[in-house]
Amino acid sequence: MASKKRVNKMDVETVWRGLVREEGGKIVYIIMDGVGGLPHPKTNRSELQAAKTLNLDRLARNSACGLLEMVGPGITPGSGPGHLALFGYDPIKYNIGRGLLSALGVDFKLKPGDVAARVNFATADETGKVVDRRAGRIDTETNRRLCDAIRNGISLDVDGDFFFETVSEHRAVLVLRGPGLGGELSDTDPQKPGMPPSDPLGLNEDSVKTAGIVRSFVDQARDILSKKEKANTILLRGFDSFKPFMPLHELFKLKGVCIADYPMYQGLSRLLGMEVIPPENKETIEASFDTLGTTYGEDYDFYFLHIKKTDSTGEDGDFDEKVKAIEAVDQFIPRIGNLNPDVLVVTGDHSTPAVMGSHSWHPVPVMIRSKWARVDEVEAFDEFACAQGSLGLRPGKHLMGLALAHAGRLKKYGA
Amino acid sequence: MASKKRVNKMDVETVWRGLVREEGGKIVYIIMDGVGGLPHPKTNRSELQAAKTLNLDRLARNSACGLLEMVGPGITPGSGPGHLALFGYDPIKYNIGRGLLSALGVDFKLKPGDVAARVNFATADETGKVVDRRAGRIDTETNRRLCDAIRNGISLDVDGDFFFETVSEHRAVLVLRGPGLGGELSDTDPQKPGMPPSDPLGLNEDSVKTAGIVRSFVDQARDILSKKEKANTILLRGFDSFKPFMPLHELFKLKGVCIADYPMYQGLSRLLGMEVIPPENKETIEASFDTLGTTYGEDYDFYFLHIKKTDSTGEDGDFDEKVKAIEAVDQFIPRIGNLNPDVLVVTGDHSTPAVMGSHSWHPVPVMIRSKWARVDEVEAFDEFACAQGSLGLRPGKHLMGLALAHAGRLKKYGA
Repeated sequence: MASKKRVNKMDVETVWRGLVREEGGKIVYIIMDGVGGLPHPKTNRSELQAAKTLNLDRLARNSACGLLEMVGPGITPGSGPGHLALFGYDPIKYNIGRGLLSALGVDFKLKPGDVAARVNFATADETGKVVDRRAGRIDTETNRRLCDAIRNGISLDVDGDFFFETVSEHRAVLVLRGPGLGGELSDTDPQKPGMPPSDPLGLNEDSVKTAGIVRSFVDQARDILSKKEKANTILLRGFDSFKPFMPLHELFKLKGVCIADYPMYQGLSRLLGMEVIPPENKETIEASFDTLGTTYGEDYDFYFLHIKKTDSTGEDGDFDEKVKAIEAVDQFIPRIGNLNPDVLVVTGDHSTPAVMGSHSWHPVPVMIRSKWARVDEVEAFDEFACAQGSLGLRPGKHLMGLALAHAGRLKKYGA
Repeated sequence: MASKKRVNKMDVETVWRGLVREEGGKIVYIIMDGVGGLPHPKTNRSELQAAKTLNLDRLARNSACGLLEMVGPGITPGSGPGHLALFGYDPIKYNIGRGLLSALGVDFKLKPGDVAARVNFATADETGKVVDRRAGRIDTETNRRLCDAIRNGISLDVDGDFFFETVSEHRAVLVLRGPGLGGELSDTDPQKPGMPPSDPLGLNEDSVKTAGIVRSFVDQARDILSKKEKANTILLRGFDSFKPFMPLHELFKLKGVCIADYPMYQGLSRLLGMEVIPPENKETIEASFDTLGTTYGEDYDFYFLHIKKTDSTGEDGDFDEKVKAIEAVDQFIPRIGNLNPDVLVVTGDHSTPAVMGSHSWHPVPVMIRSKWARVDEVEAFDEFACAQGSLGLRPGKHLMGLALAHAGRLKKYGA
């Protein structure tokens, strides 16, 4: 079929979508969250260089290697955009607010039009100024009791519903449901202590109306919490309105499954139409690989195994623990060799250099093992060796197209 | 703040703009104009390879290195687009005509809607054919007298003003000011001798009207100059209408300063809202580094030091003089080490290989020194060593995002 117009604006996802086949090989993604790093000033070796990773390095020798710049030059990805890129969703075109991610993280079943915000229980002084944005990190049990009190105590004068759910410690999530809500609201969280909570402002007609509801909600919550010592107020941020994503099976004809122990990654995967199978013992990396082993088979085409510990140790600024987390992953790599998927991808969703103690913009090493991979001379899986690989340095969203192609899932483009 | 629609078309500058912080580290750009080159056929070494650059090479060993393709593949940048890319303005979206650059170069205060053209005094024979497009390169003093004569002698039948200013030698600039002018006009400069000047043609309604004004201007100028021996006509090219740019402090929250001895770079910097501090002794490279040293401090976040000589020697096709210019810069590099900016960038705005004697499309080596740079194995600052660097080969406009990130000036993207 010829194109209707000589010039049509298409992005690469649209082209892939037009080329995907129903049939093809199986794809396994091993995603070490935040795995990219920076050299330790004492040893001049990054976490991946410092880790003893015989298996990852052997895999690198049999793979096409490269680097992924997940969102764009200098742009530090949050977990949402990083994963959207890996799954082939342009992270600049498709973004997802913090509130929605939090709701997904507690497995809240979002409906189109729902407006969600991330909530912190916080401490304010008698003048109303925030003195602790995390209410002394109250425990999750206390959080549950406070959420119950708020759910039972608040009534909103609107045609709709609200949901107020515990996440963990000082974290909760608010979801508003009803006709004509808008998600373009400013945060009430002033972001630093010494300031009162901000008034929520709506940036369009629906959001102005929603801001009024939020204002009433916050006032009532404050009354309910006023007697509490630590958690006597709430701060809201990351408002967003929910619109469903085109699922992975529709976009790329992939039946996907997520093996992740963190709710947020589970939630994001569900949002993209994947099934979620939490590892039985969420405390160990081995459990995730066990679950991959038992899940692997006829039911799915696309397996997303997520490892959180490489990121959380990096966020803690604990270089040695991040090295250990990488080594812990390394020992289970041979198991995937036994499964022998048509395409095996190992990478991260962004860098989290322990020396920075935070996510960063630095590109992430990636390797693709497949019968059709152009295996290069790279001998180790790290940021510097992979820079010399045959995949080059490329945007993160390229990965899905490469994985599909190596799995024999993309037809020829044009005659 | 959440996005209004699930799908929104954004380019990377827009994302950066949404992420920039007010605070952050200081950024220094050392721009060696046209520094990229090609190997000399006798030695097979490029200008940067032939130059003895102990300091630049030491810096390369402590930097993340790469190559910048300034505008696009195969595209030879003029000075305007090359610099716009370095400053993070997409040189394809934002272009700036030669006429406007010339006006900026003489510090002419352009107003929105002004239409400017670059002017050459030229020599025509008795039949009107151009015999010398540069009027024997008349001296600047003669140029000034001719400009006075034209300013005093010409009257245009329009609701507006014109300005006619000396640049240097045979070069001048014409600016038309008034309501309803258009900048889409064809050149009158035939570009080669033996042809008469072309009739200026307008490409839309406003430009057709403007073409009529230009025609009258050129006719009157020719009458005024007709008795002159060398400069008896004028040729116009590079028409463009002025639209203000969003300044650097608005786009990226950077208070910028330009240290350049050439008017055009000063003008372009002013256009982007930078302050301009010309080096006291414009003849030496040392003066520019002196001025950087005395300027560096609390007043600015972004320092742009421009060195012209690497380009002009390349344009002259003088390989050895370009090598010397590079070596002259090299000796002052340690001074910047003493200032210890958070981010130090060394690169060029395009290549000017001496063997070509002109600007070229070849990518330009770049290095970024910063606490957070992913320092690679590159041991020399040249076109071939930098091709192996951790920054990879990337569009020139990526540089500003990387500089901002390394300076801690970009927040995380998404949750």
